[in-house]
Amino acid sequence: MSTEPTPTPSPAVLAALEQVSTATITTQLMARGLRNAFLQGLTYANPARPRLVGRAFTLRCIPAREDLDVLSVFQDYDHPQRKAVESVGPGDVLVIDARGRTRAASLGHILATRVKVRGAAGIVTDGALRDMAGIERLDLPVFSAGAAPTTNLALHHVVDMQLPIACAEVAVYPGDIMVGDRDGVVCVPAHLAEEVAHEALEQERLEEFVLARVEAGNPLRGTYPPDEATLRAYAEHAGHRSRG
Amino acid sequence: MSTEPTPTPSPAVLAALEQVSTATITTQLMARGLRNAFLQGLTYANPARPRLVGRAFTLRCIPAREDLDVLSVFQDYDHPQRKAVESVGPGDVLVIDARGRTRAASLGHILATRVKVRGAAGIVTDGALRDMAGIERLDLPVFSAGAAPTTNLALHHVVDMQLPIACAEVAVYPGDIMVGDRDGVVCVPAHLAEEVAHEALEQERLEEFVLARVEAGNPLRGTYPPDEATLRAYAEHAGHRSRG
Amino acid sequence: MSTEPTPTPSPAVLAALEQVSTATITTQLMARGLRNAFLQGLTYANPARPRLVGRAFTLRCIPAREDLDVLSVFQDYDHPQRKAVESVGPGDVLVIDARGRTRAASLGHILATRVKVRGAAGIVTDGALRDMAGIERLDLPVFSAGAAPTTNLALHHVVDMQLPIACAEVAVYPGDIMVGDRDGVVCVPAHLAEEVAHEALEQERLEEFVLARVEAGNPLRGTYPPDEATLRAYAEHAGHRSRG
Amino acid sequence: MSTEPTPTPSPAVLAALEQVSTATITTQLMARGLRNAFLQGLTYANPARPRLVGRAFTLRCIPAREDLDVLSVFQDYDHPQRKAVESVGPGDVLVIDARGRTRAASLGHILATRVKVRGAAGIVTDGALRDMAGIERLDLPVFSAGAAPTTNLALHHVVDMQLPIACAEVAVYPGDIMVGDRDGVVCVPAHLAEEVAHEALEQERLEEFVLARVEAGNPLRGTYPPDEATLRAYAEHAGHRSRG
Amino acid sequence: MSTEPTPTPSPAVLAALEQVSTATITTQLMARGLRNAFLQGLTYANPARPRLVGRAFTLRCIPAREDLDVLSVFQDYDHPQRKAVESVGPGDVLVIDARGRTRAASLGHILATRVKVRGAAGIVTDGALRDMAGIERLDLPVFSAGAAPTTNLALHHVVDMQLPIACAEVAVYPGDIMVGDRDGVVCVPAHLAEEVAHEALEQERLEEFVLARVEAGNPLRGTYPPDEATLRAYAEHAGHRSRG
Amino acid sequence: MSTEPTPTPSPAVLAALEQVSTATITTQLMARGLRNAFLQGLTYANPARPRLVGRAFTLRCIPAREDLDVLSVFQDYDHPQRKAVESVGPGDVLVIDARGRTRAASLGHILATRVKVRGAAGIVTDGALRDMAGIERLDLPVFSAGAAPTTNLALHHVVDMQLPIACAEVAVYPGDIMVGDRDGVVCVPAHLAEEVAHEALEQERLEEFVLARVEAGNPLRGTYPPDEATLRAYAEHAGHRSRG
Repeated sequence: MSTEPTPTPSPAVLAALEQVSTATITTQLMARGLRNAFLQGLTYANPARPRLVGRAFTLRCIPAREDLDVLSVFQDYDHPQRKAVESVGPGDVLVIDARGRTRAASLGHILATRVKVRGAAGIVTDGALRDMAGIERLDLPVFSAGAAPTTNLALHHVVDMQLPIACAEVAVYPGDIMVGDRDGVVCVPAHLAEEVAHEALEQERLEEFVLARVEAGNPLRGTYPPDEATLRAYAEHAGHRSRG
Repeated sequence: MSTEPTPTPSPAVLAALEQVSTATITTQLMARGLRNAFLQGLTYANPARPRLVGRAFTLRCIPAREDLDVLSVFQDYDHPQRKAVESVGPGDVLVIDARGRTRAASLGHILATRVKVRGAAGIVTDGALRDMAGIERLDLPVFSAGAAPTTNLALHHVVDMQLPIACAEVAVYPGDIMVGDRDGVVCVPAHLAEEVAHEALEQERLEEFVLARVEAGNPLRGTYPPDEATLRAYAEHAGHRSRG
Repeated sequence: MSTEPTPTPSPAVLAALEQVSTATITTQLMARGLRNAFLQGLTYANPARPRLVGRAFTLRCIPAREDLDVLSVFQDYDHPQRKAVESVGPGDVLVIDARGRTRAASLGHILATRVKVRGAAGIVTDGALRDMAGIERLDLPVFSAGAAPTTNLALHHVVDMQLPIACAEVAVYPGDIMVGDRDGVVCVPAHLAEEVAHEALEQERLEEFVLARVEAGNPLRGTYPPDEATLRAYAEHAGHRSRG
Repeated sequence: MSTEPTPTPSPAVLAALEQVSTATITTQLMARGLRNAFLQGLTYANPARPRLVGRAFTLRCIPAREDLDVLSVFQDYDHPQRKAVESVGPGDVLVIDARGRTRAASLGHILATRVKVRGAAGIVTDGALRDMAGIERLDLPVFSAGAAPTTNLALHHVVDMQLPIACAEVAVYPGDIMVGDRDGVVCVPAHLAEEVAHEALEQERLEEFVLARVEAGNPLRGTYPPDEATLRAYAEHAGHRSRG
Repeated sequence: MSTEPTPTPSPAVLAALEQVSTATITTQLMARGLRNAFLQGLTYANPARPRLVGRAFTLRCIPAREDLDVLSVFQDYDHPQRKAVESVGPGDVLVIDARGRTRAASLGHILATRVKVRGAAGIVTDGALRDMAGIERLDLPVFSAGAAPTTNLALHHVVDMQLPIACAEVAVYPGDIMVGDRDGVVCVPAHLAEEVAHEALEQERLEEFVLARVEAGNPLRGTYPPDEATLRAYAEHAGHRSRG
Repeated sequence: MSTEPTPTPSPAVLAALEQVSTATITTQLMARGLRNAFLQGLTYANPARPRLVGRAFTLRCIPAREDLDVLSVFQDYDHPQRKAVESVGPGDVLVIDARGRTRAASLGHILATRVKVRGAAGIVTDGALRDMAGIERLDLPVFSAGAAPTTNLALHHVVDMQLPIACAEVAVYPGDIMVGDRDGVVCVPAHLAEEVAHEALEQERLEEFVLARVEAGNPLRGTYPPDEATLRAYAEHAGHRSRG
């Protein structure tokens, strides 16, 4: 299953995922039996750009070896790290398996800038980033497990791309849909993206209504989850809204 | 001792604890032999509401089991998590033992809102929170070990309330006084709240005076800790202030 | 080697290190065979003062023992912690080996203020700080592994100063140059400070030029690393700039 | 569900569980949707007694508090720890929630001996044991996360018994069936014990046959998992054996 | 460099590596600039078979996903895990990247037996093993990070083989030489195997002589490291031995 | 207090400590307010020599730096590690602060042999050992946190000796009494050694009597802790024994 080409979700599906929270998405995934979709421990760099939606473009690192991972390898423009950066396209999210190690960076400001210029939708690493002062002002959603000034060669050897990887102990297959917000990053398997997007949108509209009722002083009983009376009130409200 | 009803501290005691820092409180507790009152690793969600003071209302979680902890249990308004939320009252702090696990949330925006509407003084969990974007704007002091979008059922089974619990490796008995600020959360045993509040207030007034002297260039010798001369100066200053 | 007096770098060297990032410095250190200069896990307290440059003045802690580390020891102005604070001078960075333990603080607002008043260049601890609300407004670069209200005596016994120490699993020798910024703190061995400062400055100027090109849409090939054409363009640009 | 009385499995079911491995049991549990039945990190004390089967009798600890958890509390024969030891009966496994903390012991040789004398089937703690030299010669299956000489009061406060608990991040309800062997300890929910025991026994007989074939040089293809031909050969072999 | 075919070391080289300790090998690797060759945290299963030497045959796992990693996938004889087991040949060491996760097993007794029957030289995983009671009697050197009864599907998805992997935070390239003994497992890059084997053998003969002298009461000075006199004595001794 | 010379306990005190368990000793220390005397996580190498008693001779390591910690430093017989080995005397326990890091060894078989030949009472490190196959047959009690083949230079720089250190998060002052057995290692402050030894011996004799009663079927009530009747029986028994 993992080796077959996964169809890219339509723009409408991606647009729907832009509107829903990762909290809602993980509930939808749990309803389908998936309890491990959350990439624990990653936070966004740019407070103005926490919202991430895009297709996973994967990059894999293994530990560095002192005789292979020397500064001169970066003279090679075809080094796998550089090649991956030049391979991401519009809508892609560069997802990096750094084995959760944050003592050296996965990449820095210059490469992140190039990823942005190529039209990518974001960057996710379970490792660290360097030049964080630049990245946190970059107009691109970037999630990481922290900052580290050290160049990736000191700890990481970028080995291949577009293979299924582990990122923050979640399986990420190329083409899966990565969604990120204030709560973190989740991975939506490509084949579930459409139905999850649709139902998450519905769930979220209802929960906004429920939240307003709770803010207004309603007890949980009857309100959360909504009983029939609340659902009728919601239906009416939704009708008004869509006609409004 | 832990099973006897603990008298609720008076409003004056709680007001005094509102004014002192957790740093001062832990020093007062250490003077009484308690070295382990700090709930390590928790931070506040809302930068505008870091100050927490209230009585512990405890909630305990054990690990989820896939056959028991399914989404449908939330249809039950008497589910222990919902029941606990509807049981907290004015001045209570909902303290949740999540075994320090942050891969799923202890609760989210809707339940936190209900806790606030019921007049509670705050929420403390050694687990995570979901819908953090909403919680960090909620007018309620909420402390957690992080954010996670995943619903608590994926990892936690809420099992009972108002029993003594562990929270961040500190014992919390129902009725203990939880105090939180920028440095984190401490638990003050109920029977010590009054004397700690009183002496912490004294200590803090003196330390403000000491700090001003250090800022003015005084060396530690004679100033911190204050020697007799400094104490006389402080007494004079305090006299002026109280007359001022 | 470690026991010989290390010459203090000149003001020009320190000024150069003020201008370059820790990312650039670690690359220069890696070019010299040093892969472990980064003190992982430390962040600055005051967002307005992330930039740290100064000479390491070291302080070492071992675990507290309940019969030795009682509150009354702080009555002694010659307690090693107090003595160390009164020993740092202009340009010094107080670097504290707290064994990476953050359940109690290394120091608080009053002592940090005294360090500042004495003209020190900053504070670095792999432990925690208390009174963080005060420290994050202090006009001094302070880096730590977190906040904790508990006084250091509950966990730490300050034992000696100006010996080589471990800080965040990096060797720090008295006189080494500590540099900190948004990515964290690095330790530059004293004997390398001058050449690293010089080459880092060069590297950084070139990388600013490279970054501008990448922002302008240039691909990595030819630009990063710069090929001969890009280097010529840079040389021209640099010439213009220096004449400008 | 967790609060209803769980029927105790019949002696035949317990006898069947005595014969099968925890590896087989976890496969049977996974076939029923339970992926988290293994109490990671626990090993048996007595190499001659690794085999554990019995009903969970639970005991819960919270962190110690210096004013409550003093040596004199052990003068009270009704202290919850002592009471629990005197409450376990034949076939019970004393399962202790020590929050996975091993810096102090959950219990020592004298109490473990009393548990054995009372006819219990074993002891499981996610904490440590003291007097390990004695416990590893005790004729009782005892599993722990390590050894520690320190008495439990230094770290643990035994608070209640026969409530659902967490042990090594697995939910254990009173009456669940604990099974332990060389691979560790698993918890079988009481209501599944009978069917799991039955099918595990079947699975294990087949796997012994498969193992013999693999040892004899057969490739996995056709053998593991067994295809129809292998299953026929097994049926014949099993027939011979039951007639033999 | 990593993608070129690595020549298999000669039988003489492998035989030499059989005779030297991993302690000696890591010293030889450090002399060549490699400080990270040790796969920390792995121990052998069978006390009678701690000695491992062979070529790495790599297998990579990513986290399981509940919809992909169901028990029925093992019906497929071409499942990557089964295929890998049927691909190892004489002299191979099956090296498994399990991301250091030990909550479920990498493989069990039946597959380990098949690996042995195929003539492999051993198994190394940074995860766990199940059916440890069987594996610890298997006539094959097997190293792991622990035991776990749970089948690998509960946590791991075997994804591909013979790619460079991380194992216990060490880079392992297919064809590298794995050496294991009482101290653990080290990975010798294929291109260094011959010279390391040769010099390690030399070093070890000398150290046996040194050890005998230390046991006889000689001080370190002059003996360890050996000065010229000791080296002369060793040369004589070695001469005697080779003539003996 | 820590800098004053600590008197060495008499042979009688050391002999008493040889007879009592670390479990009993930690209880005696807790009775004196010391809850943190246990060096968590260390085990003995030689199953025939788990019993350790001796005076702490301390050795401190900081992290290695690649330019300082090269193999050639071991040519220097006065390297601090070698000097420390040649400084320990009869009755000393070499206690090594390795910051709990086990990726490289603190020392190996040759140095451990020299320590033994010099008459030392044992070795304790919170790091690892190399050449474990030799050390586990050495006639010397040696405790460590594991095995690692890598030479200490790859991770550790031995910096000084006979200063107070941290070992496994316990303060160890030169001259403190280290005691080790199957449960691990504890540090007895020198000034408490005599009274702890005396009372531990008393406690242990009583507990042997209590254990025999529990083995004989007596309930905890009246037996553990012993009530007056049991104490009288013990007194009689002890009288018989001393007259026997």
